[in-house]
Amino acid sequence: MNAHTPTVTVGELPASKKVHKPGQLHPELRVPMREISVHPSAGEPPVTVYDSSGPYTDAMGKTEIERGLPRLREAWIEARGDVERYEGRTIRPEDNGFVSADRVTPEFPVRNRPLRATGGRAVTQLAYARAGMITPEMEFVAIRENLGREQLRSKLQRDGESFGAAIPDFVTPEFVREEVARGRAIIPSNINHPESEPMIIGRNFLVKINANIGNSAVTSSMAEEVEKMVWAIRWGADTVMDLSTGRNIHNIRDWIVRNAPVPIGTVPLYQALEKVGGIAEDLTWEVYRDTLIEQAEQGVDYFTIHAGVRLPYIPLTVDRVTGIVSRGGSIMAKWCLHHHRESFLYEHFEEICDICRTYDVAFSLGDGLRPGSIADANDRAQFAELETLGELTKIAWAKDCQVMIEGPGHVPMHKIKQNMDKQLAVCGEAPFYTLGPLTTDIAPGYDHITSGIGAAMIGWFGTAMLCYVTPKEHLGLPDRDDVKTGVITYKIAAHAADLAKGHPAAKVRDDALSRARFEFRWEDQFNLSLDPETARAFHDETLPKEAHKVAHFCSMCGPKFCSMRISHDIRAEAQKEGLAAMAAKYRDGGDLYMPVENSTESTTT
Amino acid sequence: MNAHTPTVTVGELPASKKVHKPGQLHPELRVPMREISVHPSAGEPPVTVYDSSGPYTDAMGKTEIERGLPRLREAWIEARGDVERYEGRTIRPEDNGFVSADRVTPEFPVRNRPLRATGGRAVTQLAYARAGMITPEMEFVAIRENLGREQLRSKLQRDGESFGAAIPDFVTPEFVREEVARGRAIIPSNINHPESEPMIIGRNFLVKINANIGNSAVTSSMAEEVEKMVWAIRWGADTVMDLSTGRNIHNIRDWIVRNAPVPIGTVPLYQALEKVGGIAEDLTWEVYRDTLIEQAEQGVDYFTIHAGVRLPYIPLTVDRVTGIVSRGGSIMAKWCLHHHRESFLYEHFEEICDICRTYDVAFSLGDGLRPGSIADANDRAQFAELETLGELTKIAWAKDCQVMIEGPGHVPMHKIKQNMDKQLAVCGEAPFYTLGPLTTDIAPGYDHITSGIGAAMIGWFGTAMLCYVTPKEHLGLPDRDDVKTGVITYKIAAHAADLAKGHPAAKVRDDALSRARFEFRWEDQFNLSLDPETARAFHDETLPKEAHKVAHFCSMCGPKFCSMRISHDIRAEAQKEGLAAMAAKYRDGGDLYMPVENSTESTTT
Repeated sequence: MNAHTPTVTVGELPASKKVHKPGQLHPELRVPMREISVHPSAGEPPVTVYDSSGPYTDAMGKTEIERGLPRLREAWIEARGDVERYEGRTIRPEDNGFVSADRVTPEFPVRNRPLRATGGRAVTQLAYARAGMITPEMEFVAIRENLGREQLRSKLQRDGESFGAAIPDFVTPEFVREEVARGRAIIPSNINHPESEPMIIGRNFLVKINANIGNSAVTSSMAEEVEKMVWAIRWGADTVMDLSTGRNIHNIRDWIVRNAPVPIGTVPLYQALEKVGGIAEDLTWEVYRDTLIEQAEQGVDYFTIHAGVRLPYIPLTVDRVTGIVSRGGSIMAKWCLHHHRESFLYEHFEEICDICRTYDVAFSLGDGLRPGSIADANDRAQFAELETLGELTKIAWAKDCQVMIEGPGHVPMHKIKQNMDKQLAVCGEAPFYTLGPLTTDIAPGYDHITSGIGAAMIGWFGTAMLCYVTPKEHLGLPDRDDVKTGVITYKIAAHAADLAKGHPAAKVRDDALSRARFEFRWEDQFNLSLDPETARAFHDETLPKEAHKVAHFCSMCGPKFCSMRISHDIRAEAQKEGLAAMAAKYRDGGDLYMPVENSTESTTT
Repeated sequence: MNAHTPTVTVGELPASKKVHKPGQLHPELRVPMREISVHPSAGEPPVTVYDSSGPYTDAMGKTEIERGLPRLREAWIEARGDVERYEGRTIRPEDNGFVSADRVTPEFPVRNRPLRATGGRAVTQLAYARAGMITPEMEFVAIRENLGREQLRSKLQRDGESFGAAIPDFVTPEFVREEVARGRAIIPSNINHPESEPMIIGRNFLVKINANIGNSAVTSSMAEEVEKMVWAIRWGADTVMDLSTGRNIHNIRDWIVRNAPVPIGTVPLYQALEKVGGIAEDLTWEVYRDTLIEQAEQGVDYFTIHAGVRLPYIPLTVDRVTGIVSRGGSIMAKWCLHHHRESFLYEHFEEICDICRTYDVAFSLGDGLRPGSIADANDRAQFAELETLGELTKIAWAKDCQVMIEGPGHVPMHKIKQNMDKQLAVCGEAPFYTLGPLTTDIAPGYDHITSGIGAAMIGWFGTAMLCYVTPKEHLGLPDRDDVKTGVITYKIAAHAADLAKGHPAAKVRDDALSRARFEFRWEDQFNLSLDPETARAFHDETLPKEAHKVAHFCSMCGPKFCSMRISHDIRAEAQKEGLAAMAAKYRDGGDLYMPVENSTESTTT
């Protein structure tokens, strides 16, 4: 422990216990879930929820930031016998942006020699899936996605519109394998990030969310970024992208990856640009390639690669209202234009695949030409690039690389579905990973909301992972509060999408919370919510006393006007008399009582 | 001015000027709009936006809370020659919930004798519309809805999916009249609320939002509620509902109505219940009827009437997860059940119509059986009531009363459209006015967001007015900050809906803000946003200096990684060379350059 070691937020969430479920094919698996217990008066079992927060929320777990997390997957990786340890690349001054000695972020204290595939093999989950192997990662994911819903078999209600997705009642390890083999889902799992708990991104699984963190040249530090990562997953981020730019980029990333139980994504171009002093024209394939290897050795699980920003598409952006708004996209466009050459990412794409298959780094094919305003949505530039991403997907798949596709951006509601439909059509059902989309441009400061609307909709339509947008979007770098707001907003969007798609058991949590609400179990209502702290604080602003936590009203309506309280009276009255008899009487009654059955059946649409 | 006079927020919004446009049929009209000016370097005219904030944001206007607003419509009303002044009902102790002298909210200092229709006439905008009259209210609304888009004729783009709405390029006074005459739109305008600036609620007009305010027995005061009203309209609320319960309800409402430039809605049942000591069973038609007249004389513009909660529907709610969650609905259900009688609201509905037509109070037919949880969405109870609301609509229309229909509630995304479609079908296209809907139950503390998602969608599908939900929903009474957050969230939802429906000129503000963003006109970006204060504050957290307001980057990406900055470089480079030539070269080029036209056209779906 030294003065530089970041402090992170640890501890269980209220009324929550981390449990671990074993595997069957791989009995050594310990798949984490969170059980939220409810008051004994409810007579209900705990509610099991998906838990991406890692050991930080485990009362039994110990985390030491300067040592990193336990290397959960190491034995699984080595057991496959297709990797070797090697010295790895030497860290160079440019890796940290030539930072001066007095401003350098300390190196992470532990150095592990990296692994790589032997003999040109693909060590990707896709390669294993195609070979018919069910890896521990795949079984882990299957157990994790089910959330114990085997036990709810009798209660499952398949009620939703999935737009052609193929969501099973129960996720089996074999189903996971099939989906990965078909390229419809990915399990980002760099062999050099054995600390990560496997998770899956695909249309037939729970909708996931990504949180972006990372410093910029203007603000933030390593300690802040590590805490942002831990904080983001505490509230439910499924993956985290480190979008750091500026100096110290290598060392900051090391601290993040070694302490991340979730997959970490990056945009390698950002670091490559730092290595050439921020001059886009000076980028070369060699610098970029070297950066890919550097990051693959560190354990980055997915790379955003803007290989679809092709030279001929750049003129298509010139009449746009907001030009090119992707950082990576604009850098590549500038390079292409300056050199009057096709993008080196496009030209060297197969070599990039060769690197990715050596470490199992998944592709996140970047949408460098995504629209940055309502005016530019669904234009030729955007869709030309998307088609190229479809081509590149086939190339990556041929190399056994895992692929997902990034999507927009700023899109009004009536143009959202076209994005999803086109992506499914041209990218062979590779998972879609969208930023928002933002459904209007007029609310900077609230773009978590403008985009949360679009995210919920596109998640329903089939997007597999939603990249969050924070309230600071367009205005500044998000701080810790912004990260939390962004994550909670996107958990809402993802869950609303799961409900609408008809994910089995998605409604279990809604129903448990609604019952708690109806029965005035205030503590349960807080604990079952996405953000128990905020729910409790809001309640306590007006009714702070402990006695109010069992009160049959709140300050919104007060006791006399509490509809739920009155509903209980109604229910009690109905039970006194016998509900069936009462209903019968109403139906049989005189002129006063209209026949219920007829009145409702005749006009139900 | 005395110690009790509330202080309200006044003053123009940044870079904004209130302008007033005259009428043609009624040249005396002064229709308010807000012009947001942009930096001269943009070379652009000001952006005109809808302005519901009244004289409080008029630099030239003077507001004195203890005198009330100018009585704008008084001359128009009197000129129609169909009303008379009369003494009005005497205020009684029960009107303020038998409040003790030491706790009474002072009476509003000015008392105007109320107006009523003479000779059993209907003095409603619907009656006038049917008679072929274009009232000043109708022309006012037409001018207001257009926002000067006559001048944008050449720029209008009709790009949207309106699901069968009939949105015109320009709103004429005659179009307003027709829509009102057909019952497809309402102009809430009680003849005793002449302070209100006419506005319209209908599917073929801009989507509107309502903000709920009001004290409860547990918290809040008159001064707070008046300021909440002024604050809500400052940020864009189009109507305000005063949902006060508890004591002082009459006097608080007087202060609100006399100072409200927007229509005020209430749920008269709340006050009626206070008059009978909070015992639902003790309610009588006579008490209720007296309350309607009391509030109609005060100037309430629309009444929520839960006349669709019929005795035979109550058994349908008993197996629900959350029973009856509407306050009014639960009160009526309890009354019905206790007396084993049909609802007195249903039985006396025609008499209610007679009161409403005497003052032009619009109906907001309440959805007392709306679902309070995802589990209860779209159930038999809900739709049985909706069908009854359809029946009641016809009765009210036969009496020349204006009607809108309230809608849910808690509804997952895949069940939202069914609500809209069924409402259109059974209620003869009367305007729909929905609360949210909330698309999941699991996020108390964030229900402005869970519901903002549903609100944007149902607004797109055709809902005419969206009732906001604040972050405090389910947890407590909203304070001033919550009101603002709720209003801004719902302005986002309404605007996103307008964009998606293809409202002419809706995109003008998005485009202006996006151009400001692209051109690093930071001040313009703040000023054009829904909440300039927050946008500026967020920006200034990391880059507070004035110099940064013209910087070609922000702290999010820093200068080197600013995609927009790079886009400008690209554009400059393109212009140097001649964009057309460049594009041609790319198209004609060798193997390196793929033919753009073919590549995009071949796969555009």
